[in-house]
Amino acid sequence: MKKLYSVLVENRSGVLSKVSGLFARRCFNIDSLVVGETFDPEVSNMTIVSSGDERTLEQIEKQLNKKLDVIKVKTFKEEQAIARELMLIKVKVNKSNRKDIMEVCEICKADIVDMSNTHLMIQICDTPEKIKVFRSMLSGISVVEVARTGTLALPKCNDLEN
Amino acid sequence: MKKLYSVLVENRSGVLSKVSGLFARRCFNIDSLVVGETFDPEVSNMTIVSSGDERTLEQIEKQLNKKLDVIKVKTFKEEQAIARELMLIKVKVNKSNRKDIMEVCEICKADIVDMSNTHLMIQICDTPEKIKVFRSMLSGISVVEVARTGTLALPKCNDLEN
Repeated sequence: MKKLYSVLVENRSGVLSKVSGLFARRCFNIDSLVVGETFDPEVSNMTIVSSGDERTLEQIEKQLNKKLDVIKVKTFKEEQAIARELMLIKVKVNKSNRKDIMEVCEICKADIVDMSNTHLMIQICDTPEKIKVFRSMLSGISVVEVARTGTLALPKCNDLEN
Repeated sequence: MKKLYSVLVENRSGVLSKVSGLFARRCFNIDSLVVGETFDPEVSNMTIVSSGDERTLEQIEKQLNKKLDVIKVKTFKEEQAIARELMLIKVKVNKSNRKDIMEVCEICKADIVDMSNTHLMIQICDTPEKIKVFRSMLSGISVVEVARTGTLALPKCNDLEN
């Protein structure tokens, strides 16, 4: 079972280390972790995806809530969330594969964000599943570098809940 | 001075905790940290943005290189990189502000990814500066939730370097 944690924490040095240490010490598996700012400069937001049985996932939530630097923990299941990932990928390009790459980008709504005579950098922002499809569609292309975020997620818009 | 570190690490539990602990113990400031997968399931990629004087930034690089789980460290300056962030933002919507929100989305190339009668979820993927502009353009709108990645970056395409 996969669960997503949206955790508001104090924006202090050492908080990330404390939270990730909590998972490491208890051998809880982190599938993905994203840290970012919020509108409040004092507060950061972490999106953590973890998999395990119901009991483990509940334990994680309890442990997170005990941490001093943690302001608020929200958990939700995969199907209750809108999830997105961002990937930057640099590929080798030549006249013979250029059309292929451009077609894949068009199909997957990926953007070319930088280029040279021999290389292209592509940006794609989509669900984790679609990013996987994009990767496999580029399988014949020589990839030089990849940078990818983990899963970013928010609970779906739901009139009853908000 | 800002520096970006692109760090390839073993995809093991505890690595994130070790790397973030290194920064915390030495009071090195992390402006932003992104962890994600690469094409190789054994290897993760971290993009870390840190600010400090030249000496501190060199020290960080050396310390990272000493870590057992670190495979490769690449550093580059802000101006040498293509940097992107991803943000999901949920706002309250009604008939009177709907047009405003849609215009801001169109100008900033942001996408509406989920909606209900009273709320909209918007996805934007751009440079950290443009994300800031988008945020300030929405200043009159009531924001319910925000999730945001840190800075993801790759060195620019450059024929000489690759």
